[in-house]
Amino acid sequence: MENIKIIIASDSIGETAELVARACVSQFNPKECKHEFLRYPYIESFENIDEVIQVAHDKNAIIVYTLVKPEIKTYMQQKIKEYNLQSIDIMGPLMNLLNESYDENPYNQPGRVHRLDDAYFKKIDAIEFAVKYDDGKDPKGLPKADIVLIGVSRTSKTPLSQYLAHKSYKVMNVPIVPEVTPPENLFEIDPSKCIALRISEEKLNRIRKQRLKQLGLGDSARYANEARIKEEISYFEDIVERIGCPVIDVSDKAIEETANDVIHLIEQQAK
Amino acid sequence: MENIKIIIASDSIGETAELVARACVSQFNPKECKHEFLRYPYIESFENIDEVIQVAHDKNAIIVYTLVKPEIKTYMQQKIKEYNLQSIDIMGPLMNLLNESYDENPYNQPGRVHRLDDAYFKKIDAIEFAVKYDDGKDPKGLPKADIVLIGVSRTSKTPLSQYLAHKSYKVMNVPIVPEVTPPENLFEIDPSKCIALRISEEKLNRIRKQRLKQLGLGDSARYANEARIKEEISYFEDIVERIGCPVIDVSDKAIEETANDVIHLIEQQAK
Repeated sequence: MENIKIIIASDSIGETAELVARACVSQFNPKECKHEFLRYPYIESFENIDEVIQVAHDKNAIIVYTLVKPEIKTYMQQKIKEYNLQSIDIMGPLMNLLNESYDENPYNQPGRVHRLDDAYFKKIDAIEFAVKYDDGKDPKGLPKADIVLIGVSRTSKTPLSQYLAHKSYKVMNVPIVPEVTPPENLFEIDPSKCIALRISEEKLNRIRKQRLKQLGLGDSARYANEARIKEEISYFEDIVERIGCPVIDVSDKAIEETANDVIHLIEQQAK
Repeated sequence: MENIKIIIASDSIGETAELVARACVSQFNPKECKHEFLRYPYIESFENIDEVIQVAHDKNAIIVYTLVKPEIKTYMQQKIKEYNLQSIDIMGPLMNLLNESYDENPYNQPGRVHRLDDAYFKKIDAIEFAVKYDDGKDPKGLPKADIVLIGVSRTSKTPLSQYLAHKSYKVMNVPIVPEVTPPENLFEIDPSKCIALRISEEKLNRIRKQRLKQLGLGDSARYANEARIKEEISYFEDIVERIGCPVIDVSDKAIEETANDVIHLIEQQAK
């Protein structure tokens, strides 16, 4: 069995290179194809490069890199050639195309994607908003939110809100439970910014049983009871009809996929 | 002034391709070098490819793609060649290297990086944990947390906790305010899992004045008052000394950069 070593080298933190590497290794059976990431962030000197090259040479590692400073990048490429190493330049090919298309030269400054600009602070505000207005805690968030998510318990409302917040949307989520009357202004907001998360009975049953097991409780508790689940889902459908909002089925989706659907719906309705 | 169109085409949601594209365009002056992303997620048929090719041809767009199904990818590459279009294959080069290194063939299934496996549920739990234990709300989270962040108000504790949660760390954050005695068990946890976020007086003053302006309040309020800031920072330093935990200066860092430092510290201490 092979254990491939992958060096993530970057003059910033290296998350772009790591995401590409993760997407690629996820295509291989993890039982047969082992991998190990070795992270080298903040590469800023020839000495840093020398260290990476040494490790790649010793461990027969693939170097996956994002480097924007020309002298650092050129040195890396020379050394890779000199030692005949395997490597992938993540940003280089697209940077070359953009360089041909734009008249202006690039900044060649590491970490510009993380700079503290308006977009950054908008994202930070969105993350704080989603934490503050999680779980319908304060109905005052409803008119301020870009997106309002509703759903029964265990439909991933909280992580989905956070994922959308990282894309700079202000998201509030409101749990739908038969015993709790939803805030009155949920029925007053623009229904096109409200998205209902639907889940199948079978799936909900499975998730909740799993949850009870995690919590060390038996699976006969009311929370995972089939009649109870039917009651909750039927109450949820009533609320959805009253609001008149679009619905996304989340039964077999990862939050990244549901988030993509939510953004698509919201952007379409905004047109 | 050029406005470059970049098509993000993927047989999954396309976030890997978009992150690479964002990192690249952020290297150009946004005032002079405009860009526009056109997203085509869930590419699964030749018809979907034909649509992308048509748009790329009509709008002179660069196609940045992540495609793992061989027949879909081959068709895309044929069409790109046929129409003489500009394109970047994000995963292809590394997939080729991995194919050479591993004996097994890849799955070639789109979206595997988002599959609902143990790692996925660990991440979801971490995100929910960070929301639940945000702002020191419940000291019971302290022994359960992988990382405990402490800091005065406006040191980005909440978004930083969320960012680390997306990397599957269970994070609790505790605000340090002179008027509020921190929970007693903050001094009982392993100090190596606690990280103090330090910020300079000048920076804190600037952030808080900005914050007050946003909230529509004057900047003379107690919150941004210099004597008050000195008092808060001095109290913070006392607490840090009592706990004996490592400190990270966050004054000029984006949360992604601070998160990288936190993970580095935590991983080092775990060794």
